[in-house]
Amino acid sequence: MTQSFYPPQRTLMGPGPSDVAPRVLAALARPTIGHLDPLFVELMDEIKGLLQYAFQTENELTIPVSAPGSAGMEACFVNLVAPGDTVIVCQNGVFGARMRENVERCGATAVMVEDAWGTPVDPQKVEDALKAHPEASTLAFVHAETSTGARSDGKTLCELAQQHEALVIMDTVTSLGGIELKVDDWGADAVYSGSQKCLSCVPGISPVTFSPRAVARIQNREHKVQSWFLDMQLVMGYWSGESKRAYHHTAPVNALYALHESLVMLREEGLEAAIARHKRNHLALVAGLHAMGLQMAVAEPWRLPQLNAVCIPDGIDDGDVRARLLRDFDLEIGAGLGALAGKTWRIGLMGHASRERNVLTCLNALEAVLKGAGASIDSGAAIDAANACWREQGA
Amino acid sequence: MTQSFYPPQRTLMGPGPSDVAPRVLAALARPTIGHLDPLFVELMDEIKGLLQYAFQTENELTIPVSAPGSAGMEACFVNLVAPGDTVIVCQNGVFGARMRENVERCGATAVMVEDAWGTPVDPQKVEDALKAHPEASTLAFVHAETSTGARSDGKTLCELAQQHEALVIMDTVTSLGGIELKVDDWGADAVYSGSQKCLSCVPGISPVTFSPRAVARIQNREHKVQSWFLDMQLVMGYWSGESKRAYHHTAPVNALYALHESLVMLREEGLEAAIARHKRNHLALVAGLHAMGLQMAVAEPWRLPQLNAVCIPDGIDDGDVRARLLRDFDLEIGAGLGALAGKTWRIGLMGHASRERNVLTCLNALEAVLKGAGASIDSGAAIDAANACWREQGA
Repeated sequence: MTQSFYPPQRTLMGPGPSDVAPRVLAALARPTIGHLDPLFVELMDEIKGLLQYAFQTENELTIPVSAPGSAGMEACFVNLVAPGDTVIVCQNGVFGARMRENVERCGATAVMVEDAWGTPVDPQKVEDALKAHPEASTLAFVHAETSTGARSDGKTLCELAQQHEALVIMDTVTSLGGIELKVDDWGADAVYSGSQKCLSCVPGISPVTFSPRAVARIQNREHKVQSWFLDMQLVMGYWSGESKRAYHHTAPVNALYALHESLVMLREEGLEAAIARHKRNHLALVAGLHAMGLQMAVAEPWRLPQLNAVCIPDGIDDGDVRARLLRDFDLEIGAGLGALAGKTWRIGLMGHASRERNVLTCLNALEAVLKGAGASIDSGAAIDAANACWREQGA
Repeated sequence: MTQSFYPPQRTLMGPGPSDVAPRVLAALARPTIGHLDPLFVELMDEIKGLLQYAFQTENELTIPVSAPGSAGMEACFVNLVAPGDTVIVCQNGVFGARMRENVERCGATAVMVEDAWGTPVDPQKVEDALKAHPEASTLAFVHAETSTGARSDGKTLCELAQQHEALVIMDTVTSLGGIELKVDDWGADAVYSGSQKCLSCVPGISPVTFSPRAVARIQNREHKVQSWFLDMQLVMGYWSGESKRAYHHTAPVNALYALHESLVMLREEGLEAAIARHKRNHLALVAGLHAMGLQMAVAEPWRLPQLNAVCIPDGIDDGDVRARLLRDFDLEIGAGLGALAGKTWRIGLMGHASRERNVLTCLNALEAVLKGAGASIDSGAAIDAANACWREQGA
């Protein structure tokens, strides 16, 4: 008969889920209470406030969608896009293609702006597309491409959209809590993220925020939103506070305990400190990787500190290295996706995983496995380089 | 600054979430591993097998949707229903109306078969509707109406649909694991449930199963499924086993640990024993409620043992009683929904909450609160009646 499952203790340095802090796992396992319990309604209000802090927004409609980031993406598209609309979609990795799927399933037309994988979205191309398509109601792009490790210039892209009176849908699945992200300052309108990246919560929840402009568009829709589960007019009612709260679905109570705890931890550390920590450990990791003779796949100005894409050296078997890291070191790093499959590894330093011990664990394990595979690497050079980098940056 | 959240230890006897077993909470908090980890892929396979047992099916496409029951409902509709279709929708409570919303958002026409809230779906009306609408491709009904506590005759309704060559979408959110449910024997085609009812897992996951007929319809669709997140052609690829597994979304890893554990517990107890336990404790609760002078809202043959709808006596304030139960006894029972708001309470005895101690806790607390509200009730009569009922049923 099937037995209980006892997972091993992995070190999660892939593209997510990332290492979950013990405090978050402890919160997850607290006793379940009802989703209509007055204490749970208070918790929901606290989560809204904490998410507003994380997103740097005063948007009233700032909530966790009760499903993974890909449902958060869909929530943004089905609410803001209607049949017949034109949406400019930037693609420089896997998730731009998924945005296109969403646009087309809304009965709208996607105008694609394509850039090479591993490079940022080119603002000039976006401006050209906005000029060529004055009918476009929405610009959609990925702030931090999880599939490539490249950051795009969210602020500039939002400004371009505003100049052309288009609303902005922005994917911040991998950026929230890891790099600068200012929803209100930039003027993004519908923004979604995931719980399992730089928030270091368990996977399954998608924080979203909608600007007053986005809410007005939703309220003025002529077509009903095609998804009942993700219809923000209904979800808003569920998250609107105790007195006027309308039942919609049953919130994932324990997952929201965990999200709350991860957001409390972010608030305690402070957003700027968390972002600085991600940067600091990223630089040490890169110093170590360079000392090992490995090359980064993304140019320096556009590298995501929380997701480091590394070129796989010639002659090294991608799957074999990752399997050995997992088997011998309980260490998970990510494979390349799509066009980068077999060409890069993706090393996450996200949230609770962005720690010195994880950088050291990864460099040490990678050195051992690559040596085992016949690569010529100086013993300890990577660790020395990482330590030197931390010293240079101060305590 | 916002603090960590420490919920009280409630007794959950509403319409769900139900009391979660300590074993399930312990599983929930185990270390997160990657959703592509080979050990996690094995776990997914085990979950499929355990769900097949719970649903009593050999359907290959039997998986947990990574979102609550209302998303499981939507998954069934958006995959099986296409624009222009006709769907016969039975409504005898809140969730039939939600089915109608789903049908209409698919661009299809819902033919409604209406029955009074608290009564079962009338098979004769369904047969009449199927005859009057030979173009209907699908029959949709709720097996166990969470809003009213009434069971419908799933077997007979499935047979009628088969006679008219319609596929069946069946809501088993509250029935799975609590009353007889035989997906293959009955011939239901798309069936969804929830984790937080008789499985006594935490809320947030929706087990679903699709028959080979349903899968064939999905594979032959001319219109793309309007939801990317819930498109079963894509989800199937994610759940299809390690070698050919295609990335779709990030599974809610820890929630699936918990679901797995709750299903292992069901397997250990055995489905028939679990169903008998629900029945036994239901009869004792009803004996106690009757001894207290309370009346059940649903006629005996159609009562759900796991969700007991009780008429609120004249002169008793619904909200006041529930607030006192929560405040003074940490006991949650459910309010009436929709047409039954203010008229009934819903007392859940679901999964881990279907225990003698919960029956006694509820009868004792309700007696105290109703007495406090001025009702005339013999002290201890309810507890005596429940004990007598258990004795009559044997150990």
